[in-house]
Amino acid sequence: MLSGHLNAGAVSRRELLTMIGATAGATAMYHAMATLGHASESPYNGPLKLDRGGEGQTVLILGAGIAGLVAAHELVKAGYKVTILEYNNRPGGRAWTLRGGDKYTELGGVEQSCDFDHGHYFNPGPWRIPYHHQAYLAYAREFGVEMEAFEILNGNAYLHNSKKFGGKPQRFRHIRSDFNGAVAELTAKAVQQNKLDMPVDLETKELLLEALKSWGALDSGYNYSPAVASEMRGFERDPGVWKEAPSTPIALNDILNSRLWSDLSFPLSYEFGGTIFQPKGGMDRLVRKMGQSLHEFIRYDRKVTEINQRENGVEVTHVNSVAGGNPTAVSADWCICTIPLSILAQIKSNFTKEKAAAVSSVPYATGTKIGIQYKRRFWEEDEQIYGGVTYTDLPNRQISYPSCDYLSKGKGVLLAGYTFGASSFQYTAMSPQERLAQTRISVNAIHPQAEREFDNGISVVWHRVPFTLGCYGMWTESNRSAVFSALVDMDPRIAIAGEHASHLPAWQEGSILSALHAVEQIHQRAKSSK
Amino acid sequence: MLSGHLNAGAVSRRELLTMIGATAGATAMYHAMATLGHASESPYNGPLKLDRGGEGQTVLILGAGIAGLVAAHELVKAGYKVTILEYNNRPGGRAWTLRGGDKYTELGGVEQSCDFDHGHYFNPGPWRIPYHHQAYLAYAREFGVEMEAFEILNGNAYLHNSKKFGGKPQRFRHIRSDFNGAVAELTAKAVQQNKLDMPVDLETKELLLEALKSWGALDSGYNYSPAVASEMRGFERDPGVWKEAPSTPIALNDILNSRLWSDLSFPLSYEFGGTIFQPKGGMDRLVRKMGQSLHEFIRYDRKVTEINQRENGVEVTHVNSVAGGNPTAVSADWCICTIPLSILAQIKSNFTKEKAAAVSSVPYATGTKIGIQYKRRFWEEDEQIYGGVTYTDLPNRQISYPSCDYLSKGKGVLLAGYTFGASSFQYTAMSPQERLAQTRISVNAIHPQAEREFDNGISVVWHRVPFTLGCYGMWTESNRSAVFSALVDMDPRIAIAGEHASHLPAWQEGSILSALHAVEQIHQRAKSSK
Repeated sequence: MLSGHLNAGAVSRRELLTMIGATAGATAMYHAMATLGHASESPYNGPLKLDRGGEGQTVLILGAGIAGLVAAHELVKAGYKVTILEYNNRPGGRAWTLRGGDKYTELGGVEQSCDFDHGHYFNPGPWRIPYHHQAYLAYAREFGVEMEAFEILNGNAYLHNSKKFGGKPQRFRHIRSDFNGAVAELTAKAVQQNKLDMPVDLETKELLLEALKSWGALDSGYNYSPAVASEMRGFERDPGVWKEAPSTPIALNDILNSRLWSDLSFPLSYEFGGTIFQPKGGMDRLVRKMGQSLHEFIRYDRKVTEINQRENGVEVTHVNSVAGGNPTAVSADWCICTIPLSILAQIKSNFTKEKAAAVSSVPYATGTKIGIQYKRRFWEEDEQIYGGVTYTDLPNRQISYPSCDYLSKGKGVLLAGYTFGASSFQYTAMSPQERLAQTRISVNAIHPQAEREFDNGISVVWHRVPFTLGCYGMWTESNRSAVFSALVDMDPRIAIAGEHASHLPAWQEGSILSALHAVEQIHQRAKSSK
Repeated sequence: MLSGHLNAGAVSRRELLTMIGATAGATAMYHAMATLGHASESPYNGPLKLDRGGEGQTVLILGAGIAGLVAAHELVKAGYKVTILEYNNRPGGRAWTLRGGDKYTELGGVEQSCDFDHGHYFNPGPWRIPYHHQAYLAYAREFGVEMEAFEILNGNAYLHNSKKFGGKPQRFRHIRSDFNGAVAELTAKAVQQNKLDMPVDLETKELLLEALKSWGALDSGYNYSPAVASEMRGFERDPGVWKEAPSTPIALNDILNSRLWSDLSFPLSYEFGGTIFQPKGGMDRLVRKMGQSLHEFIRYDRKVTEINQRENGVEVTHVNSVAGGNPTAVSADWCICTIPLSILAQIKSNFTKEKAAAVSSVPYATGTKIGIQYKRRFWEEDEQIYGGVTYTDLPNRQISYPSCDYLSKGKGVLLAGYTFGASSFQYTAMSPQERLAQTRISVNAIHPQAEREFDNGISVVWHRVPFTLGCYGMWTESNRSAVFSALVDMDPRIAIAGEHASHLPAWQEGSILSALHAVEQIHQRAKSSK
């Protein structure tokens, strides 16, 4: 009967597994998943399906970032009465996109205008969605947000150490292939001479040599030599009508001393090495759509001034975040607080001692992004760099080339600087004009033609962003052990959500998963409180 | 004065270099290019600028594939009178896209219908444009063809050996990370024990150890152990609200014996490891636009039956390729012949003995592609594979997942098989129904749910394609030395063009570069013949 049903037409894997689960129990279901080859690695368990029991209860959500929006969306579907208080006059929080005509005032009162041409944008906050962020992608799919591939690994982008190779940027593919090839050659020779620190029988030895040759682009003598190496690293001159000219690998010692190997792993890591997405047109696409869908429940321009739990509910006071004025109070049965801890620690509240200690224990990371519009896409036209990232020791640290509108003839916006740590603190201390000037010097050192193509730019230093006062919650292992549970357990009427309430800090996926966790906690209590 | 000009506004690099070239000569120009950091690796020298002198002369072009179209486009711009004879009733030749409603009759008379839904397609021929194919991209830009990123390297796609790991496909990221990590660990231990076959001073030793640790994801003891390895290969369970669970690496011996390492280099090679493009909507986008632009010069459904050079021109006879009938003759001052050598060798001609020998000396490769439409995108929904390629030892060899319409809810078309060599010959001997059945068995072994999601499919085996009788010209080094020059030198009224007349076989870039070379040869002669 089951197989008859299966043959009837297209059955989604989830439906199939549900059917198997319903008929044969959890063990059979796990085996079916394993047979399909893919027991899930994601902590996202698929769309929330809240049962009945919470209808009509009220939930106050503080913050309309991705966590608050997801929580509201799920609670509204389950029949809760939701109110969201949001500091800004837009949804999304850090999931934010700047376009031509936008204005932004940072802490200290300096206002910047975004002067990009129509169609160009810059994401000051999150900008990439790894394929394994399945919760984000599920909401993108639900809300019909078109996702396009974001290129991180681009062999033709640069690795740059301003003090090595005469300051000349090196192609990623050269450093990667040459380091890989040199290691393969060294290892192959150690294998041949039976010097390896492993028991190797003759058959394994032959296999290992063959594998090293293939993987490291070695010649028949196990040397990383120009003719074969060029197939990996590229040619001095590509084949065309006539034969190609091979290129010469960089010596291992030069690579080691340049330290350019430091950035080789990153774009092949789990976090960044698979398919990565960006919402087409800007990171705010999803939060804008969710904001529209939840429009009637969101109150913008509201600054929370006090949070109080009482025995049977929560009371929050708030003022107009622009005009100030007298605080208004609002009450609800439950509350989900997504306010960044950097802000929350400054708001008067009656959290338990343990939770209050947790809230004030997490410092916020520094982070800086600078977007520059150039008059033409010189990185494509002159240097054949289409998407991807250049890494440099200069203050701007990274240049990310747009993964959209490839080969188009007009202007283009670079993420011209993206910094954490020391360099970011330096940027934070500068005026927007100084940041731009500093970033232009860095970009010019890598792309000399950039100077005359400069059009305009804008910067966001996250410690000066009024609604977060920092980039993301910086947890240490020891602080996690000490206070993380106290932070995410209900207090008992308030659940904390946001990237800071997850083990996936700085990612929207962490925010969403923590929001779903908060919703589930509230739903369980709401049902039993009836 | 020069710098004043430069500051006046956006100056393209080409303009800048032309200015420097004009004022300071070629040496200064090369130095300027080197300062910009990018002496070109491409044999494409930018748009052809033919000087005057050929106006009014007639050129007959045989074949409206990408080579013939490019040649015609450039010659028309320079004032030549062009006629193209094309065998098919469409432009593009092998740059071909099949969509729902298309019909295709292969050698032997069997007709297949393409039953894909609207918006879906399959490229039986070329399907990928590496970023360094600068000539193709220049024409795509000139004709306004939108290009999107094509994903080849996808760590979440599979490597599959049906006889290893119980037949279970392995994630590319697992095999790549684990092989890399195991080699890094072996090498690091050899370094520590001073067993390397290179002189290593203390500082270099420390640097090399540090680099191996970073690159191979080794722990502080230089072991490739689960906690650090998981950052590269992925987790047993990803971090969410709660901490991640690390995964366990695959043992080196198991990887060696599986031979899955054979496919690790390919997606990181020069040819495939940079940004790769596909025209949005199908590979025929560019050739269709060029065909429209050259419409008045192209005669479709024409089969060439004889090619004769005379002292002052060329005469070609042709018949209707569908209806047959009496041959018609057409004359011109010059001819560019882009007919595949597999066909050309069978056409009566009066080439020199050397050229005729060259024409008949190049066998054509076998190649097979099978496109299958499925009722839903199960590779995305169930297995989180977005773009990229799975490699298998099964007869279908490769499965390529679409690099477009990610996360969309409807149907999807897989390149379900892509084969060369022995497997391709087997497919060639089968009927289209048998090919589909065979391919479905292969796909099902990797994606069991594919069986019930099957919708329809179509196959192209290139040795049965009437207009090429093979996939591409298969040159050997020795045959290149013996006859390549005789093939591409003018004869003296006929120039040969196409991928077979290049050192970049099977790529459209080779066709375009050979077409530009043919045009330049004719233009030089046309000017001096006046």
